[in-house]
Parts: sequence; structure tokens; C-alpha cells
Amino acid sequence: MNTAEYIVKRLEELGVNDFFGLPGDYNFNLLYAVENNPNTKWVGCTNELNAGYAADGYARIRGYGALITTYGVGELSAINAIAGAMAENIPIIHIVGLPSSDKIENKDLIHHNFQEVNYQNFINAYKQVTAATAFLAKDNAKLEIDRVLKVLVRDKKPVYIAIPSDVAQMEISDRVVSYDWVSDRKILEEVADKICNKISKSKQPAIIGDVLIKRFDSKIEYKEFVEKSGIPVSNFLMGSNLIDINYAKYLGGFYGSLRNPIAQKYIDETDCLISVGAIYSDINTYGFSIPFDINKHIAIYGNYTYIDGKKYENVKMSEVLEAITEKIEYKDIEIDKPNIGYKHKEADNEPITADFIYPQIQEFLKENDILITETGTTLFGVAQMGFPASTNIEIQSLWGSIGWATPATLGASLAKPQARVILLTGEGAHQLTAMEVGNMLRRGIKPIIIVINNNGYTTERMLSDSSQDKFNDILQMNYSKFARVFEGDVWATKVNTSEDFDKALKVTQIMNKLCYIEVCTDKLDAPQLIWGYINSIKSTTPYTTVSNAGSKKEYDDMDNIILSSSISSSENGFEYETVVHQGFVEEKAAEKISSEEEK
Amino acid sequence: MNTAEYIVKRLEELGVNDFFGLPGDYNFNLLYAVENNPNTKWVGCTNELNAGYAADGYARIRGYGALITTYGVGELSAINAIAGAMAENIPIIHIVGLPSSDKIENKDLIHHNFQEVNYQNFINAYKQVTAATAFLAKDNAKLEIDRVLKVLVRDKKPVYIAIPSDVAQMEISDRVVSYDWVSDRKILEEVADKICNKISKSKQPAIIGDVLIKRFDSKIEYKEFVEKSGIPVSNFLMGSNLIDINYAKYLGGFYGSLRNPIAQKYIDETDCLISVGAIYSDINTYGFSIPFDINKHIAIYGNYTYIDGKKYENVKMSEVLEAITEKIEYKDIEIDKPNIGYKHKEADNEPITADFIYPQIQEFLKENDILITETGTTLFGVAQMGFPASTNIEIQSLWGSIGWATPATLGASLAKPQARVILLTGEGAHQLTAMEVGNMLRRGIKPIIIVINNNGYTTERMLSDSSQDKFNDILQMNYSKFARVFEGDVWATKVNTSEDFDKALKVTQIMNKLCYIEVCTDKLDAPQLIWGYINSIKSTTPYTTVSNAGSKKEYDDMDNIILSSSISSSENGFEYETVVHQGFVEEKAAEKISSEEEK
Repeated sequence: MNTAEYIVKRLEELGVNDFFGLPGDYNFNLLYAVENNPNTKWVGCTNELNAGYAADGYARIRGYGALITTYGVGELSAINAIAGAMAENIPIIHIVGLPSSDKIENKDLIHHNFQEVNYQNFINAYKQVTAATAFLAKDNAKLEIDRVLKVLVRDKKPVYIAIPSDVAQMEISDRVVSYDWVSDRKILEEVADKICNKISKSKQPAIIGDVLIKRFDSKIEYKEFVEKSGIPVSNFLMGSNLIDINYAKYLGGFYGSLRNPIAQKYIDETDCLISVGAIYSDINTYGFSIPFDINKHIAIYGNYTYIDGKKYENVKMSEVLEAITEKIEYKDIEIDKPNIGYKHKEADNEPITADFIYPQIQEFLKENDILITETGTTLFGVAQMGFPASTNIEIQSLWGSIGWATPATLGASLAKPQARVILLTGEGAHQLTAMEVGNMLRRGIKPIIIVINNNGYTTERMLSDSSQDKFNDILQMNYSKFARVFEGDVWATKVNTSEDFDKALKVTQIMNKLCYIEVCTDKLDAPQLIWGYINSIKSTTPYTTVSNAGSKKEYDDMDNIILSSSISSSENGFEYETVVHQGFVEEKAAEKISSEEEK
Repeated sequence: MNTAEYIVKRLEELGVNDFFGLPGDYNFNLLYAVENNPNTKWVGCTNELNAGYAADGYARIRGYGALITTYGVGELSAINAIAGAMAENIPIIHIVGLPSSDKIENKDLIHHNFQEVNYQNFINAYKQVTAATAFLAKDNAKLEIDRVLKVLVRDKKPVYIAIPSDVAQMEISDRVVSYDWVSDRKILEEVADKICNKISKSKQPAIIGDVLIKRFDSKIEYKEFVEKSGIPVSNFLMGSNLIDINYAKYLGGFYGSLRNPIAQKYIDETDCLISVGAIYSDINTYGFSIPFDINKHIAIYGNYTYIDGKKYENVKMSEVLEAITEKIEYKDIEIDKPNIGYKHKEADNEPITADFIYPQIQEFLKENDILITETGTTLFGVAQMGFPASTNIEIQSLWGSIGWATPATLGASLAKPQARVILLTGEGAHQLTAMEVGNMLRRGIKPIIIVINNNGYTTERMLSDSSQDKFNDILQMNYSKFARVFEGDVWATKVNTSEDFDKALKVTQIMNKLCYIEVCTDKLDAPQLIWGYINSIKSTTPYTTVSNAGSKKEYDDMDNIILSSSISSSENGFEYETVVHQGFVEEKAAEKISSEEEK
């Protein structure tokens, strides 16, 4: 077994069956290993950043992801995707094919190098954005692979391996080393005792769950702990839908006092906060609206736990939760149960707004769906939804790299082919990586893609001094026509009213193909939650001190803004091709309409 | 004047009127400075890598380029473009907007960060790929800007500046510091004397010119030196068209013995080689077919010169050339003048091949055209052309990052609006960054885009063990339909025969709009020069030791391959929309056809 085959085999054992990336003359040996393994396959993407995002989406669903690129030009193009995985605890291995060892030793000036050749430059860059890196050589290949894969498994963070082409095909031992690890039993006991002790003394304990519960594969243990403890529970934005919205002790999401005063009040007054896998970032906490005092706090993370400011290492999140669950006594604490989710809104024939879009999507969601939401206005619309219990919500709001969601949808769809995957993105973000729609068609996957076309970077419009700043205008394109540029079977449409959006969503249910829905809204149309968030940011920390006349006023009354802004998407003279649904009589008409659409 | 305005002003003085990038909430103050300066404008791109490539294309024509991105997500997406600029001596300044200083000092966990906040990570990554970096603070802003801009000007390499949002709008002194520099006069005298002395003793001196002559703005001085000296002259691939092909002492391009034995023989036998701005990389020297012995060699670079292995610092290329030209005596050396360029080939109605494509493009080129050629088969086709004297050829064959050429065309077109810009790319490379075609339309620029659709990564097919390796297959798309997805006026067509390609090129001359021509060729159709190059690489350094049966044979006879391969582009079941020109009766029909095409 050669080095490349060994890596592929070990990753396959971790559940990685799809490898994303682009070929390059220095990585052929890695690609042969993927193609020759009967259980793995190669998923070529349109560029390396997209491939990295796809591996990220795959890892979020499968547990691990893999990316293969070529030296220099390939690996550097993907570095933002890997940095995003670092920020958000997504375990991706990035494997880079290099020239052969003799060329590296000679510092030969071959392509993909600087004139002053230094084969360490790019691994050095990657050291800044990964949990472990390795530069394989003939005498350390297996040892180094096993070392970085242990980090991948333990820390759930990205790792990087550079492999010279001759090392990739060198024969190595295939002796299996275990990458798994277990908690230190003694520390685990101590941690569980201390936590249970604190909870039993508490009058108003509270739990906040967050996304790292998913990343460290502890959803079941978390749910058991929550239910057995009886402690009221909330979550941050990225931790949406860890707990069934109908659960009696669920306080709803924690959005500061803006939209959920019940959760805010309960947590403000708690005398014992237990956070599990929580990321205390600006957006995730709605502008730091929760004070994070590590000294008065129990914080359970993937590999360690804080209790009152003291860090206990080598304890696994799932095992800590199990140990507490075993000892904890039920506390019957009553809460005011908030109304969770959007109320049904009747569709009408008026221009569609966020007030309709998100309730409609909420009603559309089913058990086991995967909803991938781009950074931008959409994630705030999603945050307030009430979800079916097993719907998986994936957002990237810590790293917040626009463009992530489209390729991540490719990855997630390949990771779980039996699931319905829904992508919700703004058109500004979509443009960064939209070519990957073609790859979805090429791979025969069938997500439902909802592109909110609000005519520019709407979140940036809200954040900048004036919503009219020209730098937030973007390229105009015909999205439904775009979706039909690629080989493959697609149903693409464009809607302007909530009635047509509702009908289009229904049509997707009878389409056995990729569905692409462009939803045209006003330039400044956005969910109320983001207006509130941005107003609160702007009132405390202005982005610029020299404020343009009128810009402050512009955001003072968000409802007013939503209603008063009326810049139409065709104002700049670009008329979209007419592919708008003009009312469905009934769903059976859909197939006919579809075939007409495609002409 | 604030910090952002100062940078913009100084860059404007260097000839930068267009700033490429994407907005982000941390860089608004930089964008305001660009938009508020009456002589500069903002060019938003569809993603940061594309913006970086566009700045590269701009810098190649204007002298300098500027890129503005946001912290983390934005800057990292562009790092490959900046690394490419480092490899190829393209002076780009990358300006990154960061959160305000207080947030940086507090290590606040705000978006675009890792959970363990460290604001040095990304500048550290950039230290690996730039000539200078600066992290601005309130007490060093102007000093640091002036320092890195001096490096930009002197070394013609990319530099990086990180600017916290409050520092960007802080008032600073606008006292002008000169960034220019002059040679050390004493060393310059010594260098010129030594070089002239060596040349006067030589019986068979030879000059090789290369691309760094352009990068260090020394084309005129180089030409004067060549002509006054009378020394026979050749060039490497990237240095195409520095000397008029009709010049009596021009030996033609140096492609090893494969295609130009006259240049190879003369240079092999020289007793005094003078290289000017030469990059001795694999592709640029056709597989290291020239032995580069620094100890027997005069090598003039941007800021230093080597003579017989000794390095003389602080001498400017243009000034060294001027000083030699002043002293040198003319040597009348006779050479066998090679035939340069392709012979005219009569167009016919057969499937088009590389044997037709490149002669047709050669005939199409005019004075002052800018021809941007992607890495891949196309650059080898271009290498053998005979160009009009003032045609500017831009290729990126040292860094060789596929996808570069399309956004570089946007940048080059904006840099010199009066020039006709022609992009020549393979469709595989084009896919990586194709969205920027939309941006060209948005900006109203009118390049001629020629996409060679050879159904996959053809150069990779040639390099890998088997041309049938599936990882070199790519997404199928309808390119001419794609070009019409965007707002703006485009003429798009698809051709299969040399007759139709010839007619399409003629049509572009009467179209006052962006022209997009898809040229469909066979999967393994490529210029003979690249077949020869790859055969020579493969015979000495196989990419894999385990060769697939038959793979060696497959490449043994390139002519045979070109003729015998007959995989059709529709073989995999995807039928292109029929937008093929079926013969023009005369050019006047073009407008009519055009309007039909767009329907």
C-alpha cells in the first residue's frame, strides 16, 4: 500500500467517501489512490475555494471532509475555506500534492513557485489556519499522517498534509493506529461531581446549547442531559434546533431582549449557567447581549470543561454529558413558554417580502431536511423559525464568508444523498461561488436552491453609512437562465409574489430534479431580527465617525425602512428575461410549465 | 486627509485609477476614500480571487495595481492572486480593512475570526507571499504606508497593508515622500565597464531577453541596447515580443532544439551570454534546455546585476542598460535568420484544430493589441506566433494558476481602455473564474474572448498517465449561452471549423461590443510545441513510476495522437444548444446574425 492509498483508506474508515478538489500535475498520485479505492470517489469542482467549501459542507454532515489540491496555486486558492473550517470546528483534511522530493531538495524553479524558491512558504501560511500540518518525507510519512489524523479526530479542526509526488507513491506500512481517544476517568468524575453539585445548589439554573455540540458529535448525550435535568434551555444562533421546539422547558433561541424577552430574562437572572459547546461571538450572541463571565459559569467544550474559571483538560464533551446525566436529579422549574416560530401568513399577489419568505420556508420544512443558510440577511430570517425536530440547520456565522453556502450544499448533498437539502442564499453571496450549481447538476444531486435576489449586498447596505453606497451594487444577471447553462436536469423559475413563491415551493415536491427559485425582493427588504441587530450595533459602535447626513435617521425606524424603500430591481435598465410564474392553476400544471421553462 | 485618503492619493500618483475588490463591513472607510477621490474608482468583482487577478492584469499594463478586501474571509480568498504577483513581479498593493483598534486590542470575538482570537494570523500568512507587510496602528500609519510603497516601487512585488477601521479614518500628514530610487553611480560605472569589456572580448555573444524587462519598465532601454550592440538576440517564453520579429539579429524565441534549432545552436555555442530580466523556470526555458551557469554569465535584473557569479546590488536595470548602450561598440555578427511565426493556412470546413487556430489568431493581431493567454495549451500556441511589433503578450507561466487570464482581462481592459484586448483561454481554466465575464459587461469593456473548448483539462490529460483519467473531465456547459446570462451587450458564438472561426474573428471587427467565441476542438488537440515539451518531460522525469499499460506509447508520436484521437465533445450525451455559425455569406450579414443569436 502506498502513502496516498494509506491516507485514502484511513479517511474512508472515518466515513469519507467523497474527495473534493481539482487535479494538478503534482497531485495525480493522490487522485489515482482515490479513484482506485472502490469505496471512494473524486468530486472535481470548478475551483479550489469551492472545493474547500464543498468539503466543509460534507464534513458538517458526515463528520469529516477531504480536499485535494495541487502545490501553490491550488492550495492557496482554498485557504479561506480551510480557515473557515478552523473557525467553526469543521474537521477537513487538506492534502496537497507537491513536486518530487529531489526537485524540492534541489530547489528547482519549476512552475507554481516564486523566483526565489522556498518550498516552506505555503505550509507556513497554512500553519496559521490549521490545527496541525505535516510535510511528508520518505522517512516520516506514516508517522506524520497518523499524527495529524489524530488531531483531526480529537480537535475536530482542519489539518494539512503536503506530499511530494514520489512520497505519495512510496510503499509504507498499513498498520492501523487508532485515532480515537477517551477522557481521563479521574478528571471526568471530578468534573461531573462539581457540575452536579453546583446545579443542585442553584435556584435558577439555565442551559445554553450551541453548535459545537454537533461538531463534537454529542447531540444525543446533550438531549438526554437536558431532559433528565429538567433545566430550562436556550441556544445561540448557530445552535438552532438542537432541542425540539415543543419541549416544555425550551425557552426558544437567545436573541437578546429584542425578540425573545422570556429567554433573555430567564438567562439574565440565572445563578448557574451551563453552556455546552458555545461560541460567544458577536453575531452568535446577538451583539454580546449575554455577559460571558467564565468565573461564574460552567462551560463544556469538545475536549475540556471550564468550571468557575478553572479548565479541566482531557474530558470529552459526550462523556461529560453522560456522566452528569447519570448523577443529576430532576429539577421541576416552570417557565413561561414563548411562542416559537413564525405564524402562518396568507400568501397574496403583492411583491414578496421577508415577512412572507421565512414563514413560507418554515412551513415547507420537513423532518430530516438539511437547511443550509448563507451568511447575510437570510440567517436572521432562519433564526426565528420553528423547525421540525430533526431538521438540520447549517450556517457559518462566526467565519461568515459569503459564498460558502452554495458549494457547501454540493458537499452536504453528497454526504447524505437520501436527505432533502435546501439552500437559502442571497444573490450577492451566491455570485461568489455560483458555478458550483453546475457541479450539482453534473453529480445528479437535487437540492432546492432559493436565491433571494435583493439587488446587491443588502447586509452591507444596512451596515454602511448609506444604503445607496455604490460599492454595494453588484453585477446583474439572469439567475434562472444561469441555472440552465449547465448540463443536467434543472427546474428554474423566478417569483415576485408570495403566492408564486408558495406555488413554486409546492412544485419542487413533485419535481425529481434540482430546483432553482429566484425570489425577487426589494433592495432593503430583510428580516426584522437583522434590522434590530444592526441598529443595536450602529447605536453603540458606529462604523465611521463621519456620518453622512441622513444616514442615522435612515435606520432609526426599521419598519418604516422596510415599507418605504421602493427601488425596483429593473431600475438600472436591465430587464430580466420573462420566466416568471404567472399563477399556477394547480400543481399538476407544473410538469408542463417546467418543460416550457426549459426551452 | 485621513489614512485611507492618503493611500489612495499616493496610489493615484503611481497611475492607479481603478481599485479592485469586494466590500465588507471592515473596509467601508477604504471604499469611501476611493469613491470620494475624483480620479479613482471602485471596481467590485464577483469574488476576491477574481479581484486579485484583475488587479494583476491591471498592474501588468498600468505599472501598479490595487486590491481592497475585508479581514479574514476576503483577504484569504485573494492570497493565490497575490502569491502569483509575487512569483511574477507584479506590483500590487493589497489593502485589508480590519475591525477597529479597540476590538483588536481586546481580542473581541467578532465575525471573521477563529474562536481563539489572534489578529496576527492572516498577516502572518501574507508574510509568506509578499515583499513587505504592515499592520497599521495610530502611531505608525504614515511611516508604514511610505515604507511598503517604497518596496512596491523598488522591487515591483506585491505588498500588504492591514488597516483597522479607526486608523483608516484617522487624520495623518499628507507630506509627500518620494518612492523613487536611483542606482549607486559608482557601482553602475563598474558594472557597465565590466560588461562592455566582456562583450568586446567575446567572439559569439548572445542576448536573452525576458519578461522582467517589462516588469521593470526597461523595454525602450533594452531595445536600444540590443540594436546598438548588434548582438544576436533571443527570448524565453514569457518575454515574447520584446524585439520586433523582423529585426535582422533576432534569433526567434528560445524553445530548446525542438522548434528553433537556430537559436538553440547559437546560444549553446555562445562564449558570452547576457540575460536581461530572465526567469529560468521549467516552462519558460522549455524544460531547462539552457544551462544556467551563473559563473559564466552576465545577468541583469531589476535592482541588481550578476557578472561571473558576483552580485552587484543597487543598480537599476534601465540604468545599467543605458550605461552599457552608451559605451558599447557595434558588433556585426551574421546569423541564420529563422522563419518566425506560423505560415498562413487556408481555412476549410473540417473540424478546427490547433494547426489552424494559432495561425488564424496570428493574422488577426494588430499593433497595440493586448493578448492575454491562459496557462495551458494556448500559451504554447502563442509562443510560436509572429507578432506585430507593439502587440503586448501577457502570460503567467511561472505561477501558472489556471483561471488567472479571465479576470486579468478585465483588469487589463480597464488599464488601457483604448487598446483591443484579446483573451485566449481553455474552457477548463475559464470555468474557475468565468463569472468575471459578467463584470466585463457591467463595466462596458469590450474584449474579444476566445474560449478553446477541448472538453476537459487538456494539459493535465497530456501530463497524467492516461489521457482518459476521469479526474480531467470537467463540468459541461453551454459557453455562448453563459455569456448571455449577464446584463450587457455581448455577441456570443460557437464555432467548429476553421472557416467559421475565421468568419467569427472578422465579425468581431465590426462589433462594438464584447465578443465571446467558443472554439470546439478535439479532447487532445493541442499545439505541437506542447506535445514536444511534455514528451521531453515525460521521457526524463516520469510523473508516476507505475505506468499504466499503453500510456507511454500513447504519447510517443504526437502527430499520430493529434490525428488519431477522435473523442467528440458530445460523446457523453450532452448536446450543446445549436448556436453554431453555419457559414457567413459575407461580413455584412454579421449584425443580423448577431441579433438572432441574442434571442
